[in-house]
Amino acid sequence: DESNIVITNGSQNSFFSLFNLLAGEMQDGSSRKILLPIVPEYIGYADQGLTEDIFVSIQPDIVFLDNKQYKYQINFDKLKSTIKQNNIGAICVSRPTNPTGNVITDIELKELTTIAQDNSIPLIVDNAYGQPFPDALYTNANLDWNNNIVLCMSLSKLGLPGLRTGIVIANREIAQALSRINGVLTLAPNSMGPGILTRMIQDDELLQVCSDVIKPFYKQKADNAVTIFNEVFTDFPVYMHKLEGAFFMWLWFPELKITSEQLYIELKKKNVYIIPGHNFFMGMESDWDHQNQCIRINCAKDEDVLRKGLEIILKTVT
Amino acid sequence: DESNIVITNGSQNSFFSLFNLLAGEMQDGSSRKILLPIVPEYIGYADQGLTEDIFVSIQPDIVFLDNKQYKYQINFDKLKSTIKQNNIGAICVSRPTNPTGNVITDIELKELTTIAQDNSIPLIVDNAYGQPFPDALYTNANLDWNNNIVLCMSLSKLGLPGLRTGIVIANREIAQALSRINGVLTLAPNSMGPGILTRMIQDDELLQVCSDVIKPFYKQKADNAVTIFNEVFTDFPVYMHKLEGAFFMWLWFPELKITSEQLYIELKKKNVYIIPGHNFFMGMESDWDHQNQCIRINCAKDEDVLRKGLEIILKTVT
Repeated sequence: DESNIVITNGSQNSFFSLFNLLAGEMQDGSSRKILLPIVPEYIGYADQGLTEDIFVSIQPDIVFLDNKQYKYQINFDKLKSTIKQNNIGAICVSRPTNPTGNVITDIELKELTTIAQDNSIPLIVDNAYGQPFPDALYTNANLDWNNNIVLCMSLSKLGLPGLRTGIVIANREIAQALSRINGVLTLAPNSMGPGILTRMIQDDELLQVCSDVIKPFYKQKADNAVTIFNEVFTDFPVYMHKLEGAFFMWLWFPELKITSEQLYIELKKKNVYIIPGHNFFMGMESDWDHQNQCIRINCAKDEDVLRKGLEIILKTVT
Repeated sequence: DESNIVITNGSQNSFFSLFNLLAGEMQDGSSRKILLPIVPEYIGYADQGLTEDIFVSIQPDIVFLDNKQYKYQINFDKLKSTIKQNNIGAICVSRPTNPTGNVITDIELKELTTIAQDNSIPLIVDNAYGQPFPDALYTNANLDWNNNIVLCMSLSKLGLPGLRTGIVIANREIAQALSRINGVLTLAPNSMGPGILTRMIQDDELLQVCSDVIKPFYKQKADNAVTIFNEVFTDFPVYMHKLEGAFFMWLWFPELKITSEQLYIELKKKNVYIIPGHNFFMGMESDWDHQNQCIRINCAKDEDVLRKGLEIILKTVT
């Protein structure tokens, strides 16, 4: 239904409005948090709370896979006890995830959906890299929507970040609140993005562009990244998160002697730019060493550049 | 200097960021207000405070002019005492003003500038209808800038509201803070507006469009509006604010028997749409009857429609 859809000035803007609508200091004086069921999560959420400490997050389980790969999984026991202990205003998960390339499984998503419904907590799904556009998914995954899910999409990853167009599909109450926040913040979202998108949807062009151009392009980049990773790090103790979607590779150096922050500084001197991992663990209380052992790398760049970069990283951590 | 300029997602967005940066609950626990030196002021400011009661405003003096016209003037005595009594984070004035069409004089602006500087309070000037674009000014007025002035401009009134592009010129400290708020709220402003504007400025097209097309168009509308007002309301006790800029006429019915809110409801039944005036007096404590005796009318529409509308208004208030 039309009244379930809201256009915003980009997905970043959607999350600013959603987080501060559903969490933080509430009208009755109480305070609510955004629950991140799995971290690392998208770094862009980090500073969006108008009040401090808006996030609480759950340390994930790590499942080791073949070829020095691994995958984060939601720890549902911890999740359930965290929900009980805190006043949670919304659950938020990105799928695929920037920075890790993780795509939580259909089973995980279903369980999250049930828990959210049972506790009457909206479940925000950040679908910026997901279906139907840009469809930067390299694994099988299905998307669901119900009245308790707030589905966020973006035009950025179609190559249109400059148009700042976010799309939110939510129940009418949330949709109406978002549209009012829009009014106060910016009067109206910009109309160029919807203008172009509407035509492309009507002409059935958008899905074709995704399946024929965007998805194959990034799938190829992801495949290459895995190959280069295996070639460069053959004999080194490093793990890569299974690259199931989005445009990044997420490396974990369990024996790293410096912090990822220090590694970032060292690499910058050599003109290699990575994002140190600890920034992506919003809302975690525990002193989990893992947070300082990971880095994010953009893997959608030129192959030779990526290989050179990984080689320099190998030299630096050795 | 480049570091003095920030692009936002439209002027509404500029003000949301500026008001909440400079006023409201501050980091040290104190609370600051936005001072509106003259009301009525732009209705879009009204709900922008993240905390309640962010505005304090000064009742203006009324100067009667020929032909049932009048003009609001800043009462500087009240202004100075209000500054002393309150913790003011910024002074904000629009010029030309939506809703009244008022353009505070160069002398008023100069005095405001001095007071702001003397008190180390930033002076925000909302120049959305002003110079150099769209230049919807029908009176002589000059624009100044100094390190203490935050000058806000917009592309909307060039006919490009859908591009949501605001421009802020401020000292580096404020400019940098705004750009950081931008980052959190929307990552980046949309780039289509600046893209088009840059070309038009480089080709010297923009100023020409303003002087040859936009300004004459709206000047003509304003002149017609005054003529029609005089014809329709010849024998009725009503005053019109001197139409010095922007696209609105502001009528004051000093003998109105109902409130402007009730008048709005009556007119709506007759398919005449006006904005009741009380909404534009943000931050006023006093019970000033004047607030319920004024209405805003868009005067940039078709002449016949305007005349018909004014005739129906006359019948309704008689």
